[in-house]
Amino acid sequence: MNDADIHQVAEGLVDSVPGLVIGTDAGQGIALGHLPFTGSLEDGLVVVSSRLAAHYHALAADRPVACLLLEDAADCRQIYARKRLLLHCRPERLNDPAQRAGAFAALEARFGGILNLLEGLADFQAFRLHALSGELVLGFGKAYALRGTGLRTVVQQTGSG
Amino acid sequence: MNDADIHQVAEGLVDSVPGLVIGTDAGQGIALGHLPFTGSLEDGLVVVSSRLAAHYHALAADRPVACLLLEDAADCRQIYARKRLLLHCRPERLNDPAQRAGAFAALEARFGGILNLLEGLADFQAFRLHALSGELVLGFGKAYALRGTGLRTVVQQTGSG
Repeated sequence: MNDADIHQVAEGLVDSVPGLVIGTDAGQGIALGHLPFTGSLEDGLVVVSSRLAAHYHALAADRPVACLLLEDAADCRQIYARKRLLLHCRPERLNDPAQRAGAFAALEARFGGILNLLEGLADFQAFRLHALSGELVLGFGKAYALRGTGLRTVVQQTGSG
Repeated sequence: MNDADIHQVAEGLVDSVPGLVIGTDAGQGIALGHLPFTGSLEDGLVVVSSRLAAHYHALAADRPVACLLLEDAADCRQIYARKRLLLHCRPERLNDPAQRAGAFAALEARFGGILNLLEGLADFQAFRLHALSGELVLGFGKAYALRGTGLRTVVQQTGSG
């Protein structure tokens, strides 16, 4: 695969995986949460989060967060070679009412009417997660660092476990 | 559902989900990785990790780690209510050769011959992750804290986002 193909596989995961695992520093240890999302590596990933979620504080404080997109286990030929995309992201809070409405509309296009319910809950805030760097694992010895604008620069990694 | 039923659902996720997301404090931010596992809440989760993996250092130093077990997205009726089990674990390094062999054998029983290959690689180390506490999410308003021996004590949570 050439670099464009590898980038395309990463975008394919963003399109096919509906929820990401978010890892944040919760002060007293690591918080891991789950966030359905939409968007792209180029434009960022759009999410909404309850203020009650453990990861909310890092998002609201614009602190860097780690995100992991995993293909479903049932789709893996070999669980040790599970396809995955790790992203280091900078959160942007979408405070403007039009931005918030746009985020809910984009998520509704992917996930349906549940978003109308969540949009009515005042404790849900919208964010855009800008992908600063990534690591794509496609199997044994197939790990790639993704860098630059839209994560289009691909660097093969060695020794990724 | 009574407490025993809820505990049974958590054990059911441990039995059906083949890989966990591990979150560790990597010094300069959060590291998120993926580890196939076997075991139980009672006896701990058995994993093997390459020394080259970002999460290896926390495991080898017996530092607490966060683990997230997610049902496959394709199995979710509602992605925002994705079933998941968050565990806070204490890693135990299985240094003894018989313990290491036992860990690879247990994983081979779940995942097959790939473990023979990994067992032959000197940079793979075995660990048991002892679950100290947990949080089980089964849907909107259905979040439960799991505590005590084997995480058999169940406490309904309010306001988990």
